Amino acid sequence: MNRQDLRTLLEDVQAQRLTPEQAHGRLLQFLRQAPFEDIGFARVDHHRSLRQGFPEVVFGPGKTPEQIAAIAERIVSAGHSLLITRTDARAFDTVRQKVPDATFHELARTITRAGNAPPGKGIVVVAAAGTADLPVAEEAAITAETMGNQVDRMYDVGVAGLHRLLSEHHRLIAARVVIVVAGMEGALPSVVGGLVDVPVVAVPTSVGYGASFGGLTALLAMLNSCASGVSVVNIDNGFGAAAIASSINHLD
Amino acid sequence: MNRQDLRTLLEDVQAQRLTPEQAHGRLLQFLRQAPFEDIGFARVDHHRSLRQGFPEVVFGPGKTPEQIAAIAERIVSAGHSLLITRTDARAFDTVRQKVPDATFHELARTITRAGNAPPGKGIVVVAAAGTADLPVAEEAAITAETMGNQVDRMYDVGVAGLHRLLSEHHRLIAARVVIVVAGMEGALPSVVGGLVDVPVVAVPTSVGYGASFGGLTALLAMLNSCASGVSVVNIDNGFGAAAIASSINHLD
Amino acid sequence: MNRQDLRTLLEDVQAQRLTPEQAHGRLLQFLRQAPFEDIGFARVDHHRSLRQGFPEVVFGPGKTPEQIAAIAERIVSAGHSLLITRTDARAFDTVRQKVPDATFHELARTITRAGNAPPGKGIVVVAAAGTADLPVAEEAAITAETMGNQVDRMYDVGVAGLHRLLSEHHRLIAARVVIVVAGMEGALPSVVGGLVDVPVVAVPTSVGYGASFGGLTALLAMLNSCASGVSVVNIDNGFGAAAIASSINHLD
Amino acid sequence: MNRQDLRTLLEDVQAQRLTPEQAHGRLLQFLRQAPFEDIGFARVDHHRSLRQGFPEVVFGPGKTPEQIAAIAERIVSAGHSLLITRTDARAFDTVRQKVPDATFHELARTITRAGNAPPGKGIVVVAAAGTADLPVAEEAAITAETMGNQVDRMYDVGVAGLHRLLSEHHRLIAARVVIVVAGMEGALPSVVGGLVDVPVVAVPTSVGYGASFGGLTALLAMLNSCASGVSVVNIDNGFGAAAIASSINHLD
Amino acid sequence: MNRQDLRTLLEDVQAQRLTPEQAHGRLLQFLRQAPFEDIGFARVDHHRSLRQGFPEVVFGPGKTPEQIAAIAERIVSAGHSLLITRTDARAFDTVRQKVPDATFHELARTITRAGNAPPGKGIVVVAAAGTADLPVAEEAAITAETMGNQVDRMYDVGVAGLHRLLSEHHRLIAARVVIVVAGMEGALPSVVGGLVDVPVVAVPTSVGYGASFGGLTALLAMLNSCASGVSVVNIDNGFGAAAIASSINHLD
Amino acid sequence: MNRQDLRTLLEDVQAQRLTPEQAHGRLLQFLRQAPFEDIGFARVDHHRSLRQGFPEVVFGPGKTPEQIAAIAERIVSAGHSLLITRTDARAFDTVRQKVPDATFHELARTITRAGNAPPGKGIVVVAAAGTADLPVAEEAAITAETMGNQVDRMYDVGVAGLHRLLSEHHRLIAARVVIVVAGMEGALPSVVGGLVDVPVVAVPTSVGYGASFGGLTALLAMLNSCASGVSVVNIDNGFGAAAIASSINHLD
Amino acid sequence: MNRQDLRTLLEDVQAQRLTPEQAHGRLLQFLRQAPFEDIGFARVDHHRSLRQGFPEVVFGPGKTPEQIAAIAERIVSAGHSLLITRTDARAFDTVRQKVPDATFHELARTITRAGNAPPGKGIVVVAAAGTADLPVAEEAAITAETMGNQVDRMYDVGVAGLHRLLSEHHRLIAARVVIVVAGMEGALPSVVGGLVDVPVVAVPTSVGYGASFGGLTALLAMLNSCASGVSVVNIDNGFGAAAIASSINHLD
Amino acid sequence: MNRQDLRTLLEDVQAQRLTPEQAHGRLLQFLRQAPFEDIGFARVDHHRSLRQGFPEVVFGPGKTPEQIAAIAERIVSAGHSLLITRTDARAFDTVRQKVPDATFHELARTITRAGNAPPGKGIVVVAAAGTADLPVAEEAAITAETMGNQVDRMYDVGVAGLHRLLSEHHRLIAARVVIVVAGMEGALPSVVGGLVDVPVVAVPTSVGYGASFGGLTALLAMLNSCASGVSVVNIDNGFGAAAIASSINHLD
Repeated sequence: MNRQDLRTLLEDVQAQRLTPEQAHGRLLQFLRQAPFEDIGFARVDHHRSLRQGFPEVVFGPGKTPEQIAAIAERIVSAGHSLLITRTDARAFDTVRQKVPDATFHELARTITRAGNAPPGKGIVVVAAAGTADLPVAEEAAITAETMGNQVDRMYDVGVAGLHRLLSEHHRLIAARVVIVVAGMEGALPSVVGGLVDVPVVAVPTSVGYGASFGGLTALLAMLNSCASGVSVVNIDNGFGAAAIASSINHLD
Repeated sequence: MNRQDLRTLLEDVQAQRLTPEQAHGRLLQFLRQAPFEDIGFARVDHHRSLRQGFPEVVFGPGKTPEQIAAIAERIVSAGHSLLITRTDARAFDTVRQKVPDATFHELARTITRAGNAPPGKGIVVVAAAGTADLPVAEEAAITAETMGNQVDRMYDVGVAGLHRLLSEHHRLIAARVVIVVAGMEGALPSVVGGLVDVPVVAVPTSVGYGASFGGLTALLAMLNSCASGVSVVNIDNGFGAAAIASSINHLD
Repeated sequence: MNRQDLRTLLEDVQAQRLTPEQAHGRLLQFLRQAPFEDIGFARVDHHRSLRQGFPEVVFGPGKTPEQIAAIAERIVSAGHSLLITRTDARAFDTVRQKVPDATFHELARTITRAGNAPPGKGIVVVAAAGTADLPVAEEAAITAETMGNQVDRMYDVGVAGLHRLLSEHHRLIAARVVIVVAGMEGALPSVVGGLVDVPVVAVPTSVGYGASFGGLTALLAMLNSCASGVSVVNIDNGFGAAAIASSINHLD
Repeated sequence: MNRQDLRTLLEDVQAQRLTPEQAHGRLLQFLRQAPFEDIGFARVDHHRSLRQGFPEVVFGPGKTPEQIAAIAERIVSAGHSLLITRTDARAFDTVRQKVPDATFHELARTITRAGNAPPGKGIVVVAAAGTADLPVAEEAAITAETMGNQVDRMYDVGVAGLHRLLSEHHRLIAARVVIVVAGMEGALPSVVGGLVDVPVVAVPTSVGYGASFGGLTALLAMLNSCASGVSVVNIDNGFGAAAIASSINHLD
Repeated sequence: MNRQDLRTLLEDVQAQRLTPEQAHGRLLQFLRQAPFEDIGFARVDHHRSLRQGFPEVVFGPGKTPEQIAAIAERIVSAGHSLLITRTDARAFDTVRQKVPDATFHELARTITRAGNAPPGKGIVVVAAAGTADLPVAEEAAITAETMGNQVDRMYDVGVAGLHRLLSEHHRLIAARVVIVVAGMEGALPSVVGGLVDVPVVAVPTSVGYGASFGGLTALLAMLNSCASGVSVVNIDNGFGAAAIASSINHLD
Repeated sequence: MNRQDLRTLLEDVQAQRLTPEQAHGRLLQFLRQAPFEDIGFARVDHHRSLRQGFPEVVFGPGKTPEQIAAIAERIVSAGHSLLITRTDARAFDTVRQKVPDATFHELARTITRAGNAPPGKGIVVVAAAGTADLPVAEEAAITAETMGNQVDRMYDVGVAGLHRLLSEHHRLIAARVVIVVAGMEGALPSVVGGLVDVPVVAVPTSVGYGASFGGLTALLAMLNSCASGVSVVNIDNGFGAAAIASSINHLD
Repeated sequence: MNRQDLRTLLEDVQAQRLTPEQAHGRLLQFLRQAPFEDIGFARVDHHRSLRQGFPEVVFGPGKTPEQIAAIAERIVSAGHSLLITRTDARAFDTVRQKVPDATFHELARTITRAGNAPPGKGIVVVAAAGTADLPVAEEAAITAETMGNQVDRMYDVGVAGLHRLLSEHHRLIAARVVIVVAGMEGALPSVVGGLVDVPVVAVPTSVGYGASFGGLTALLAMLNSCASGVSVVNIDNGFGAAAIASSINHLD
Repeated sequence: MNRQDLRTLLEDVQAQRLTPEQAHGRLLQFLRQAPFEDIGFARVDHHRSLRQGFPEVVFGPGKTPEQIAAIAERIVSAGHSLLITRTDARAFDTVRQKVPDATFHELARTITRAGNAPPGKGIVVVAAAGTADLPVAEEAAITAETMGNQVDRMYDVGVAGLHRLLSEHHRLIAARVVIVVAGMEGALPSVVGGLVDVPVVAVPTSVGYGASFGGLTALLAMLNSCASGVSVVNIDNGFGAAAIASSINHLD
């Protein structure tokens, strides 16, 4: 039961589609679930969808394929959308034994199974500077889509060839929120931030070498952006950027 | 002429309140202005309100009181809202000779003069961990207010005394976007991020000593927040956080 | 012979259970041992239990399984408790040929064999923020138990879901000392430190990515904790935290 | 009302020195106080003594002398011990107008007024490596004393002249907890940690130049101590070390 | 005697305008000068113009006004161009007592007196992102001019308002070498580097706050530029950038 | 069509070797090409040779051999020079199936196929401090050669054996631009910069261990060079240095 | 009584110049002194000359002029050489009231009064790269001289003008130990280390700006020197380098 | 021909054991050798023994076994001592085909073949803090021995068990120079430096984890040593420390 379900239930009572007794029963059934379910190596949070707008997301690293599959099964069996990030084909082989209709996105390194996420209000643009930034950009795009958002991908638009970005200006302006993914000198968010007036969520990537220091340079550059309207998430955190963008895009 | 003005003008044409010729004349008058005005030591950007949703903001450091006053005069005479950040009483003395009805906010170190900023849709909560964080929190609050947002201040709610924060839970939940300001270990955004489902903009402050490294620790902590929905701006950048929050709060 | 043994011996003399001559003989026998025993690649310290309250602990990295087993054998044959940290199954295979009743704790990566460690006075709570922190938390818990302490594990209580921690408040309050293990933004010790008045030993972990910099962010955050009563050990140093907690918990 | 008061009250009931009604009245009177008192620029926490074992401590930086004096007055009028850290003579002049019997400790940069802090169980040794470390060492010593502990100062015992430390071995061994204060290479806690079996709280100081990086080197060295039993607080945080030591020293 | 003088002398011999004996005499006179002149607190290098293309430049910091003036006098009396960087009005007052026709450039913090520097072949563009970068940009521009180059200043063209830069595209393309000066996120060199095919010398400035770390962020960003053709000098080193640009601009 | 081709075409018209109609046709044919060609995973930029003086260069890391080969084929079939950097023998095996006459440079880790790059005006010296710097030095040398420059390699001339460098002084002086490659303490550019008056492009390498921090030390040292005329590129960026040197060496 | 005095006394006994009784008396008199003298704010170490080859040295920072003078008086009255470092004229005014024949070295910021330091065996060369390095170089030179060494100063011999260093090659070769002082890129020790076969002690200085990071760059460069025979001390630690050099120069 | 050989030759002439003609011939024969021999991938320096006191040393990393063996053969065939550092068993297999009597030191990772190195004057003590530091300590010890020094190894004497070090005080005092090897907090050099008056060369090692940052902590601690007489080399640079120690130990 997510927020949308809760609202629908109350509207159904108002509209006489449900008796108060029926609504009461459904609420009790939901509340009788423990807010989190202890499955030994993890506590699966079943109320997060209500508190936070989207069910618990599984972060892959440090979990065995079996653990990931077990958590996935609990989430799906509770009726939630499934999103597993930073995972791989080996984990997917195990997951799909429990969740046969899950999908693996190789470039994005995510496993998803669409649930009943309410739709976002506008378009989330995901812009990426170079081809090496695509795994992070795709993590953001797949996450945003799984959370119910319409996504417009705009890749390979780095600042050293401005014509590529400027020729897409109309698509940028159509966005309700823009995720900008870039490594190396991390300059793209500043340029995009100067072209739009909607929120820009910047994701530095670890793409680069030498004095890129694993994405630190891009991170620092983005934090110092001279364009207002730019906020920043952790290096390579495509998921986090999408969660913020989705949160913005679901505001009434 | 900001976006609201532009929309009003077009609606007036549609509603026959203006003839196309009148509207045309007004548009021409606006466009005849150079997009930026060169006043020697700076180029004042008069179209930014149209492109970016808010007129140019004056960043005080590195400018003489006379330069600040001159820019302020140009902005006000062009009919824009005035916002000067990181400034002081000495600059204000000079500014108010040119802009008599400007206001100086001592704690926030800003000078403002309200313009016709369109109102935001919801409430912007500004939460601050400790009293030493107030200058940055106030910079954010004053900025957000000047940009047309209703602001709810929630100060001195650091995580080492959770009861202070939890007793304000209802105010947090009423927000459309939350700005969280904290120095030292920068833990407040994670706790707030776990309590709300709207976007959280985290502002690390340089409050602390020793291994706080001028706010670096709080910055890093916020970037690593285990709560999703948290994005981060530069250390002490209350203005930037408010600009993002306002941009989110003005989304339809 | 540890301190407890020494005290017992003296009490036995006082209580006439031992003649001074007998006690003298036993002491001589103990002192005739060299304070450390040179076994070629290491000097095994047999008096540490007397000086430091617990026998020498074997730190695994950089030692071959054979070397670890040889040291283990010397420690056990001297009648001490055995604790080997940062080790693995391969070393365990070799160790148990020499010390058949040793136990391997896979998650904690430790090998132990209980000795006659005197019991601690109260409960040591080991709280961990996320599941990825468990190897470090378990290193702390197993170490504390081997050193004679009663341990209460409280895992997966990160600050982004405060209800999980607050629902365990009574267990926290029952502790004589609390070890808090967390990676990423390292916020948990501040929250715990605000809830209890006993010493909190914070252990940053290398859990995280990007700007977590291998645990540096959590380390810095913990050092800047706004809660008093929080001290910090090295990144991933579960053993060290437990040694401190045990030292505190054994104070009369 | 601190914990000791609470316990005394209950014992008085048990011993028939108070009727339940009298005790009830006193408890009600205490609880009728708001847990924190809002004095405009700060919320003075009156229940901290109960929750945390010591009343709220005033951290001086960022507060005007008038603000410090106002908070001090509220704390003292509520019957609590007064401790103001990182302050100066100018603030003291203002404070003593409100709290005439307060004392200023110049080297320690603290203002105190003893309250009814319950006595610690043993001795807190404060050891400092060099004379330049004394301000931090004294902040620790004065804090510990104000919190009810007996303090033994052992200054100028740096590792480059071991005989100075070794000649005080007996005093070290008599401690229930040891605070070690050192700058530069921060080696003293490792040496002390090898000589005692009680908890050692290490305080790095910003004493040094060049590659001491404002105390970072001492901090890192202490975190990497090869002696077990050593935990660390922030650079120059003499207060924090004393709070931990006092917490340890007040354990039953 | 600089390179141009040397070439002219040899051409005069070839053209019979000088006898070999006359040329020999002039060369001897030059060579009889010591290559450097010891004036107590410095060795003034009189042959640098021949070796390095420009006479010795005086770096102001760490020298008294009297020392600067003494060096300046030696340089001018040897017939060289004078360039003093990182200096101030107080030093200028002393210098002009010895070198009456020297000029002080307040914004650039330099003192100059034109000599016979041979002219560069093309135009050196100095582009600066923001008004706070002007002191560094002017140091570069004045240095380049003093070294004989034609300079085109292009200020306040930061990437968050691309139209300001793009409207100057024709001036960029006319340059033989471009110096780009920027602080904060240091993105301008990447954008400029994508628009021109001549060498770009990037100068990070210490403009910014918080995570700009005194120019480190801009420096790192520029080193990671995705545009080829961009090389970088030290933070705030306008002089160094101009020396390189002049060296490039004087290549035949 | 590169710039040389464009100039030739116009000269042919002037010299009546082409009618305006013929020239017009050829220009149309070129312009009819899209400026970049989307091949799915990348946009190959066919106009870069005109804008930037050299066709697009393929950066190997993060691309599969198949992707590299596909891009290589598009570049070659468009008539451009081919340069692939940071690649390996496995990629070469795939590339030469599409581009049979490509060459693999093992030490330089590059694949090249000469095109019609216009010749540089002078000599590019590539100087390297130690044998471990050769991969980076060769990347620079091969890049410069592929871009049409004459290269003079001067290897193993580190500053700890000055006689090796000084014995090559005449070769240094003959250069139009010098690339200096060094790891460890990165001192060579300062020494070379003091010996020549042409531009020096310094390339720090990751050669070293311990406090070389992956080339950071050499990078910082080069940025602080006391020799003017030295600019710096990213760690190990031999390609970038050569691109700058070639840009300088192609100036008229 | 230093080592030389001790040896002389024993030789006098052997040579019958002293009776054993006389020698015994003198030794007793010396040993009757406490090894350190507690003067309240410091413990003056009177046996260091015997243990360490030179009496205690006073490090100025953090001590009042009165404290410095008091320590100085105790050292001189015990018959030792006096060396105060990092001090100033104000302290000197106070010191010379107690020690009238002390000398203040302004550039070196030291106060000295020669004692009976035994002479070193050879020459200590102090080489400095630039004029801004002179305060550190002079601290080294004055320290070495006060410790009994013959010093040869070789200033302004930075690597960007190699001829200045090479012309002094003969003086370098005559040294028994060389101290090399340099800021910025810190390259001089590598070049000197390649020219001599005696120990080189490198002193990085905080001279520089921007990416010199207060001497960190020079420090790192020196630690990575490709010349063997180079060891390093802390930034600006001229005293430390001289102490090492003197220790080397006094070896038999 | 090393320095000793050169001196002997001249003494033989003086002593009439050689005629001047014979000596002349031998010198010519030596000088006829090129000072360095180019073998394609390296320049082997045959005069270094004369200039620097020891022949060229081969640093293994980045060289193939074949290259190492080829260089080794050239060094040995020129009559020099052989020292190869940072190498392994695989390289040794190849080397001993060319140099059959070479020796591989597994722990020290070096290959040596003794030459005619002149003997040092005293004892070089190599002290190491922990067993994990032994590879670096052995690199130092083997290097020092190969360079002709008598070495006294003193291992496992870390500061957390001072009695182990103090019981070896007499061996420390017998040294002419002490190499101290330590990782983690790097405190041992300070303690040793306070016990001896001969030069101490400190070697930080990368032993440790977490906040040891690969040896950075030990390096910084050693640079900040409060004991005078301590200089420092790069992390893990056992070879460098031994080269310095040998240089000191060979001073007359």
